[in-house]
Amino acid sequence: MGGHPFYRFCRSALQDIRQQGRYRQFTPLARQADRYPVYEYGAVRPPEGRDVVVWSANDYLGMGVEPAVAEAAIAAIREHGAGAGGTRNIAGTSPLHAALEAELADLHGKEAGLLFVSGYVSNQASLQTILTSMPGWICFSDRQNHASMIAGIKGARGSSCVIFEHNDLADLEAKLAAAPRDVPKLVAFESVYSMDGDIADIGATCALARKYGAMTYLDEVHAVGLYGPQGGGVAERDGVADQVDIIEGTLAKGFGVHGGYVTGSAELIDYLRCAASGFIFTTSLPPSVVAAALASVRMVRKDAWRRERMFERVAAFRARLTAAGVPFMPTPSHIVPIPVGDADRCMDISRRLLSEYGLYATPINYPTVPRGTERLRLTPGPFHTDEMMDEMTAALVTLLGLSDQRKVEAA
Amino acid sequence: MGGHPFYRFCRSALQDIRQQGRYRQFTPLARQADRYPVYEYGAVRPPEGRDVVVWSANDYLGMGVEPAVAEAAIAAIREHGAGAGGTRNIAGTSPLHAALEAELADLHGKEAGLLFVSGYVSNQASLQTILTSMPGWICFSDRQNHASMIAGIKGARGSSCVIFEHNDLADLEAKLAAAPRDVPKLVAFESVYSMDGDIADIGATCALARKYGAMTYLDEVHAVGLYGPQGGGVAERDGVADQVDIIEGTLAKGFGVHGGYVTGSAELIDYLRCAASGFIFTTSLPPSVVAAALASVRMVRKDAWRRERMFERVAAFRARLTAAGVPFMPTPSHIVPIPVGDADRCMDISRRLLSEYGLYATPINYPTVPRGTERLRLTPGPFHTDEMMDEMTAALVTLLGLSDQRKVEAA
Ligand SMILES: Cc1ncc(COP(=O)(O)O)c(C=O)c1O
Ligand SMILES: Cc1ncc(COP(=O)(O)O)c(C=O)c1O
Repeated sequence: MGGHPFYRFCRSALQDIRQQGRYRQFTPLARQADRYPVYEYGAVRPPEGRDVVVWSANDYLGMGVEPAVAEAAIAAIREHGAGAGGTRNIAGTSPLHAALEAELADLHGKEAGLLFVSGYVSNQASLQTILTSMPGWICFSDRQNHASMIAGIKGARGSSCVIFEHNDLADLEAKLAAAPRDVPKLVAFESVYSMDGDIADIGATCALARKYGAMTYLDEVHAVGLYGPQGGGVAERDGVADQVDIIEGTLAKGFGVHGGYVTGSAELIDYLRCAASGFIFTTSLPPSVVAAALASVRMVRKDAWRRERMFERVAAFRARLTAAGVPFMPTPSHIVPIPVGDADRCMDISRRLLSEYGLYATPINYPTVPRGTERLRLTPGPFHTDEMMDEMTAALVTLLGLSDQRKVEAA
Repeated sequence: MGGHPFYRFCRSALQDIRQQGRYRQFTPLARQADRYPVYEYGAVRPPEGRDVVVWSANDYLGMGVEPAVAEAAIAAIREHGAGAGGTRNIAGTSPLHAALEAELADLHGKEAGLLFVSGYVSNQASLQTILTSMPGWICFSDRQNHASMIAGIKGARGSSCVIFEHNDLADLEAKLAAAPRDVPKLVAFESVYSMDGDIADIGATCALARKYGAMTYLDEVHAVGLYGPQGGGVAERDGVADQVDIIEGTLAKGFGVHGGYVTGSAELIDYLRCAASGFIFTTSLPPSVVAAALASVRMVRKDAWRRERMFERVAAFRARLTAAGVPFMPTPSHIVPIPVGDADRCMDISRRLLSEYGLYATPINYPTVPRGTERLRLTPGPFHTDEMMDEMTAALVTLLGLSDQRKVEAA
């Protein structure tokens, strides 16, 4: 062993990744449920590390540390055990699974919902299954679509893919118009794009799709729980959920737990249930995860204060950054990207934030974003205090070299 | 909406599936942690249903209802919340994740391990990433490999796949010998095949692979926890784990929780960590799932009695079936398939077991197994009592029409 050429390949591929400054060391962070967004930093267990304020988590509303959500999970563990013990078909469908699927369908105003082990798998399995169902499918895919959608689209042998420029409806229309009339078409896009923080015009995209006889598939992963009167996502906020054929989401971000799902018409969802390999041949989500997600979705629908508080915090943070002269990408969403523009510098600033200030912000490098657009991605939430914001702002001023610059400008 | 041809397609595809007798209604079953393998049957919550003894679960050892495993999950929920809140790279790596990866590597005698959200994803993402890494890969894949391995192999564009007959080393050798010498090769196979219950000759397969310069990828999903002195799988039992390049497993069957993993050399695993889309772009497993799995793996390694008790129960059940004249497929594993041979009859017997006897055994139909080989798949475990076995045996005698037949023979 060790003689196979793949071992040599791994060694040199890892060298290349390191040389390009995109080798990732995962930062060991233990979330402290009762002090979110404070985590303990350190690789040992129990952590002897020190407190770190995390600014990059995707549990946007802190639902994962909501006591009622935790208690729902704990009650389900006590009642049903730690795992599901089987696939959905092999004793792995509890009444909780069915209840959560119904709740999610209702949230999006659809007839039916289907759970997957993750948002990644819901995208990959659903898109691949749809796009291999009939001959000749063309998928029109936004250039910035997430890796999980791309995996499903690329995995669909026999279908073809036309990439349209990001959120560019003129380009989408030109490409729809140029396609043969009589083949099945699907437009796949996201509402909130998580790295740039911009938002699609869902109503206009659906109108275009209708004009050219295309179905629509919308990833609301970074929007569910956060947008719309009940947290149904941007489609709910804009009053256009009924115009989207398939709405996909995750239970792991705004809802703070784990798992993914799609919602749509009863027959479409039933077909995916019967045909999607990534749904059928895998152990179903643990009852405790499903119970926690169900509690979370119900609370998030009912209580608007968390959404409102999050947006208030986002605005408060942007105001501080502006006042301090820290550049950030202006976005219509809750995401605050701080441009850095160089992989090594981005990693270095992230490292210094952690070691010198006890603040954690993930460096976002290629291949997640194009080279030259490296950034820190910050996600202020309902539990980031004014004081935490002052600390982060001051740290960024120093580490981005803005204080020196100001001094120079003032001189 | 509703006008897109895909809606018509779904309708007629579902009709076909129904006509072929392979439409699946999921049976709503709520596991009762303190009475495993007793579940409550019924679609409502809280279930007003009645008790059912489940004979098809894949939590083979009942680790998911082990109090220490449940308590580990509960402690982690209280400490860290219900979800991970981010991808591994974005604040989603807790010390628990690292500890479980190290534990699994150690279990299989490998340098490193990597967690995925499921066993399905660990197969799909790892195989696809390996087989697209260098040009020209040929994957030699056992004809009975699981859907998740097939998804990864088929998803690897630019590679090719040669299917060898199930567990047929002569066929594998002929195909390895016929392939071009200088291309990278991988032999992908399972240890315990879960539907037929047969077991591969791992040592001989690896020897062949070595002879022809191929790497080996082994799915031990239905073996981890159950075989080998520490539950390291059939490779551990046979003393050949060091001859396998990559050992893949699940945390959702023998270990009773949720998630999947691969283990192998440090550099190979590090490459997958850096390159596998299905690993990178998804929320990491909840700390509670990881904590429960870690507790389970440690217990399973230490305590052999559950494995021994399971095999004793399997033997006891087979003895009863033999005595009663109930045909079963003789297997060298813990799986007891009862051949039925017709989709409708298989579904009907399963339904009657449930409604008339309060027993649950999943009907296994096409496409999980070839048409004409439909079966009930039973998995006796440490908690199936003699009385439960008597009940199941008697029910099968009646429902398979064996009592009438005996009467005829005796006449
Ligand atoms: C746009 C988008 N879709 C899907 C996913 C996958 O969701 P999950 O984390 O539940 O796998 C992510 C991120 O993880 C995402 O950013
Ligand atoms: C052989 C085999 N590999 C992989 C899997 C997938 O594992 P998981 O259930 O953890 O997704 C299964 C069954 O689910 C299986 O039978």
